[in-house]
Amino acid sequence: MLNLVMVLHCHQPVGNFEHVFKTALEKCYGPVLDLLESHPGVKVGLHLSGPLLEWMEKNRPDLIELMANMVERQQVEPLSGGFFEPLLASIPVRDARGQVLKMNDYLNRRFKYKATGLWLTERVWDPALPLILEDTGMSYTIVDDTHFYYAGLTDSEMYGSYLTEKEGSTLSLLATPMIMRYLIPFRFVEDVITHLKTQADMGRTLAMYGDDCEKFGLWPGTHEWVIKKGWLERFFKAIEDNRDWLQTTLPGDFLETNSPLGRIYPPQASYEEMTGWALPPAQSHILEEIVADLKKEGRWDKWRPFVRGGIWDNFLVKYDESNRMHKKMLFLSKRIADDGDARESLWKAQCNCAYWHGVFGGLYLGHLRRTVHENLIKAQSSIMADSGKKIVLFKEDIDKDGYEEILVWNHEMGLGISPKKGGGIFELCHLPSSLNLTDVLTRRPEAYHYELVNIGQTEVAEEKHEAGIPSIHEVSYSGQDLSKLVVYDTYDKISLLDHFLGPGATLQGYAVNDYPEDGDFVQAEYSLEEDKVHSNSALIRLSRKGNIGPAGLRLDKSIMVKKEAGATIDYSFENTGSHPVSTTYGCEFNLNLYSDQDPQRYYLCKGSGAVRKVWETGAEDDLTGFELVNEPDNLRLIFLFSRPVSCWFYPIMTVSKSEQGFEYTYQGTSLLFLFPMHLAPHKTEQFQIKLELRSSPN
Amino acid sequence: MLNLVMVLHCHQPVGNFEHVFKTALEKCYGPVLDLLESHPGVKVGLHLSGPLLEWMEKNRPDLIELMANMVERQQVEPLSGGFFEPLLASIPVRDARGQVLKMNDYLNRRFKYKATGLWLTERVWDPALPLILEDTGMSYTIVDDTHFYYAGLTDSEMYGSYLTEKEGSTLSLLATPMIMRYLIPFRFVEDVITHLKTQADMGRTLAMYGDDCEKFGLWPGTHEWVIKKGWLERFFKAIEDNRDWLQTTLPGDFLETNSPLGRIYPPQASYEEMTGWALPPAQSHILEEIVADLKKEGRWDKWRPFVRGGIWDNFLVKYDESNRMHKKMLFLSKRIADDGDARESLWKAQCNCAYWHGVFGGLYLGHLRRTVHENLIKAQSSIMADSGKKIVLFKEDIDKDGYEEILVWNHEMGLGISPKKGGGIFELCHLPSSLNLTDVLTRRPEAYHYELVNIGQTEVAEEKHEAGIPSIHEVSYSGQDLSKLVVYDTYDKISLLDHFLGPGATLQGYAVNDYPEDGDFVQAEYSLEEDKVHSNSALIRLSRKGNIGPAGLRLDKSIMVKKEAGATIDYSFENTGSHPVSTTYGCEFNLNLYSDQDPQRYYLCKGSGAVRKVWETGAEDDLTGFELVNEPDNLRLIFLFSRPVSCWFYPIMTVSKSEQGFEYTYQGTSLLFLFPMHLAPHKTEQFQIKLELRSSPN
Repeated sequence: MLNLVMVLHCHQPVGNFEHVFKTALEKCYGPVLDLLESHPGVKVGLHLSGPLLEWMEKNRPDLIELMANMVERQQVEPLSGGFFEPLLASIPVRDARGQVLKMNDYLNRRFKYKATGLWLTERVWDPALPLILEDTGMSYTIVDDTHFYYAGLTDSEMYGSYLTEKEGSTLSLLATPMIMRYLIPFRFVEDVITHLKTQADMGRTLAMYGDDCEKFGLWPGTHEWVIKKGWLERFFKAIEDNRDWLQTTLPGDFLETNSPLGRIYPPQASYEEMTGWALPPAQSHILEEIVADLKKEGRWDKWRPFVRGGIWDNFLVKYDESNRMHKKMLFLSKRIADDGDARESLWKAQCNCAYWHGVFGGLYLGHLRRTVHENLIKAQSSIMADSGKKIVLFKEDIDKDGYEEILVWNHEMGLGISPKKGGGIFELCHLPSSLNLTDVLTRRPEAYHYELVNIGQTEVAEEKHEAGIPSIHEVSYSGQDLSKLVVYDTYDKISLLDHFLGPGATLQGYAVNDYPEDGDFVQAEYSLEEDKVHSNSALIRLSRKGNIGPAGLRLDKSIMVKKEAGATIDYSFENTGSHPVSTTYGCEFNLNLYSDQDPQRYYLCKGSGAVRKVWETGAEDDLTGFELVNEPDNLRLIFLFSRPVSCWFYPIMTVSKSEQGFEYTYQGTSLLFLFPMHLAPHKTEQFQIKLELRSSPN
Repeated sequence: MLNLVMVLHCHQPVGNFEHVFKTALEKCYGPVLDLLESHPGVKVGLHLSGPLLEWMEKNRPDLIELMANMVERQQVEPLSGGFFEPLLASIPVRDARGQVLKMNDYLNRRFKYKATGLWLTERVWDPALPLILEDTGMSYTIVDDTHFYYAGLTDSEMYGSYLTEKEGSTLSLLATPMIMRYLIPFRFVEDVITHLKTQADMGRTLAMYGDDCEKFGLWPGTHEWVIKKGWLERFFKAIEDNRDWLQTTLPGDFLETNSPLGRIYPPQASYEEMTGWALPPAQSHILEEIVADLKKEGRWDKWRPFVRGGIWDNFLVKYDESNRMHKKMLFLSKRIADDGDARESLWKAQCNCAYWHGVFGGLYLGHLRRTVHENLIKAQSSIMADSGKKIVLFKEDIDKDGYEEILVWNHEMGLGISPKKGGGIFELCHLPSSLNLTDVLTRRPEAYHYELVNIGQTEVAEEKHEAGIPSIHEVSYSGQDLSKLVVYDTYDKISLLDHFLGPGATLQGYAVNDYPEDGDFVQAEYSLEEDKVHSNSALIRLSRKGNIGPAGLRLDKSIMVKKEAGATIDYSFENTGSHPVSTTYGCEFNLNLYSDQDPQRYYLCKGSGAVRKVWETGAEDDLTGFELVNEPDNLRLIFLFSRPVSCWFYPIMTVSKSEQGFEYTYQGTSLLFLFPMHLAPHKTEQFQIKLELRSSPN
């Protein structure tokens, strides 16, 4: 008798759009639950993530009730997991345990079920997990065949559970073979059954399948294929029709009656695809080539266990934006109360989806990043509330790059300053609205950009189509030439960066990083001259002696923060050499309006002429003031200049890939405030920017 | 200016032979320290492991003094590490931290030096290390290029330090390129300097070298090459001669003046060779083939970052003996006092060398295993001393295989029983002499056994010889046909296993696992019927209903332990079927005398005839008693049988590889106590073995 152990994982990230939740329920989770309801003989493990459960409690309690009934009649086994779907090994142990216990409590309360298994988010395995999960009641989780391969197991050895341990704390592991993930539900039901029959005929007792439920109606084309055309119904019926050799078994039941086949120590791993995504793009591309070569040469089956890429943590190296969220999360976790709203917000901010990027949008989705920052800022606000102070300053290596950063927080605003990175502002938060205005994305290479030149080569996907539908790993894209829209930044797009443009610099060139830069300040290290905090204000003085072509220039910038939502930045430029300086100074800000399509999000240019409302790419001269206006969020950032400046602005657009295909997305707005600078040797010039954040709509 | 940062790691395991320590000091560590003393311009980091330091303190305090002088004049930077050279990530965190702090204390006291770096044992990296080392004062360690490759770095990016973190705790990493480990000291000094010059010409500022100091005089051929023929002296002189572009720099100094190049998250890894050794032999062999193919095809350089084997922990799966030591260590660590002698013994037992096997003997070296067990038993004795009880019983999954084992300890003896594994005894310890008599090694396949058929193919090694001397990864072996001596066991060689031999079984066949087994008891699961402990005794009753050919047999065995060093084992055999049973019953023990060459270690056969003293392979009939005598350790194990038995005995010999070449080694003695059994249906038969451990020499 072959035990088909199926676990479906249903998840929507914290902060996803309401309409996505709604669609997901209508097109996927709802129909799947209904079909299960009408096939009581089909047993499955179900994992619903916390954000999804909370949405369903509010909007579709009927489906929760339906699930509860199926739990009661022992058709469905609920799985636990970190409540807000964090990567358990990438968050502090106290949060990992807390989130699992929260989910256990929920399952206990809502389904009267004491869970013994947990869904391992993205199957990101870490050897510390058995110890992290000690005494949480978790006795098993589900990984992929890759994890077992990397531990030295061969195909014939992985049809059962294995026991792993850390410091003596144990966890049972079940593994889903990759072929099951590609068969279900993408190939014909008959093909799946044939595959299972082959397994049964080989005397195997376990066929394991654990994967995302979204493949059953939410991924492109799958609602039509799986639900409307009846794939899932036929699959359930086929299971029932073959009950002489095939039975569905709950994972917990399987483990109770089948002892582990042995001990195992998988290294850090995830499903195979992610090990490639996590690498730097060039390395990722090489790995793709290697795998393609091996497949072509017929060597893949033999070599697969020994060929792999990077671990999830590499995303934190690849994307500074992800690292900044991650390190702020770590920073806050140590400082907030163990329970209460702030901890709950922090846990929400640990939802993994916005921290990385593979075949889903992930980090490239602004609304997901925004939600992470929103929840981080809520936790941050609790620290200010508890501090009893009007303003606080932290000086430490926040982002763990080996250099100190500075955080200045008052009750209105949070500022993060990096002397190392051009003396720039890497974070500008408005606490009352929980918005991080500097939440933009640097434009950088992705391995799949190599593909853009090959668009149109869809043979593989179409060939496989005949035997079912393509999985998203095979989806092809229509022929728009996105390759021309790909732009790469040469530095991290933070704010308060100091440019000295050479002759001939244009907005169009500047926007695509093709312009003459005469200075060496943009990403160079500034020395921290002073970081003082008083009861009502804080002062940070930064300085750098650099070069403008052959000339020497000393740039001092002082950032003064009071208890309000604003800052005054005083610049002093001194020609320290014997050459005259003749250049165009530009101060760069990169800020996020969260949409380039919404007429209620725009810039206001204030100068000698009338106030002009603009968006898209452009240039304005002779401004004494500038505003970034975000009406839907009731927020405006006001710039006041001590002298007239010009302003260049362009939207930061990225070309990224998701399950829908390639996407061209607004990630923020780049602003450059410019004025000509002519400094004779030993002369100095001053400049001041006043920044003010205002919640009022006008 | 190229900074050559060198770190030499000097280590001899706890329990190594005195003569090895002596030779190592004379041929290697001594000359290296002397040469450094006479080249004050050559700066190096030095890591001496705790066992070595303790031996030197006692036997060569002059060399410690010499080192102290070089530390004082800032020529030598001492590195910390786990004191007794444990793999930090494979022992409990409390022990890892304790061992590092102990080494810090020593360095502080003896060298007045506050260490900031640590030597990472076998460069076994685990992502939890920065957190484990939090607040121990450690700010850096040294890994291999493999670690950096696996994290997605390319060749040109690894000439500097990178910062890694866990939960915000950081550690700087420096990496030794593999080529440096193969150049130094195995190629001509000129070749090394040429390589370094190339690096300098490419503008690199760091050439990192961290490796075992034993390569400078202790590995085969290296004393002649490195010391006597003056390689090292010439190398030091060459460094001094090239001071216009080359300087030696202490690792701590380098890190202080050179900021990290970036963030990094290496996955679990070690040096490349170990990732292959850790795999099951068949997989290990495939990996070797793959690497050979890639090298032949000229693809190795491109593919290397993506091709890898297993992690260190796999050794615990590969070798049950290693796992048993490891899991007993974990068991004890939770139960002994935080400090004191027992903790010190436990830390000694954590010395890594005996837990695994690659190119060194490691687990195959009986004296190293013996020392681990000796120290574990000392910790175990402290638990008995603290318990206030005469006898204790533990029932839990000690070895983490998913099944419960039983430990019965009194003040004289420790017994470990596994119902799952044939109801066998996996541990029989004598506490007063700290000996584990069951410390034998199962004969199992090793990847290098594939090589045995290729012996004589020494071209590669000889060709390389022209450009220096072969490193031990290339050493070739003379032509003795060891392949005929390789025997594989079909089960774990524990004790109290129940055989039912078929007709025609011979000692010679039995010794090589080529004999008819009629029963299905040897490694089958027994049910645990009773496990009682009273104030003065403990009783464990095991039972199994199995088959002898077509007949059914119920076997009950009761193990009674009193407060003395001994046990009584009562057997009951019942023919439960309708077929007569006609077989030869055999009870197997596997015990270690720790030498097959010492006439003071032997067996005594006591029967109707005179007492016969034997060793080597043999058979004796009509015995009522049997003794295993170990005179040097003042220990004898006495068997008394309730009926006359025959006895088969043979030495368990393994073919393993070490830096010296292939070795054929005694790992213990296998004993089989036999008698014919004829049981009509429903008839029963009884049998009793009394075991007694005695410290007296007679």
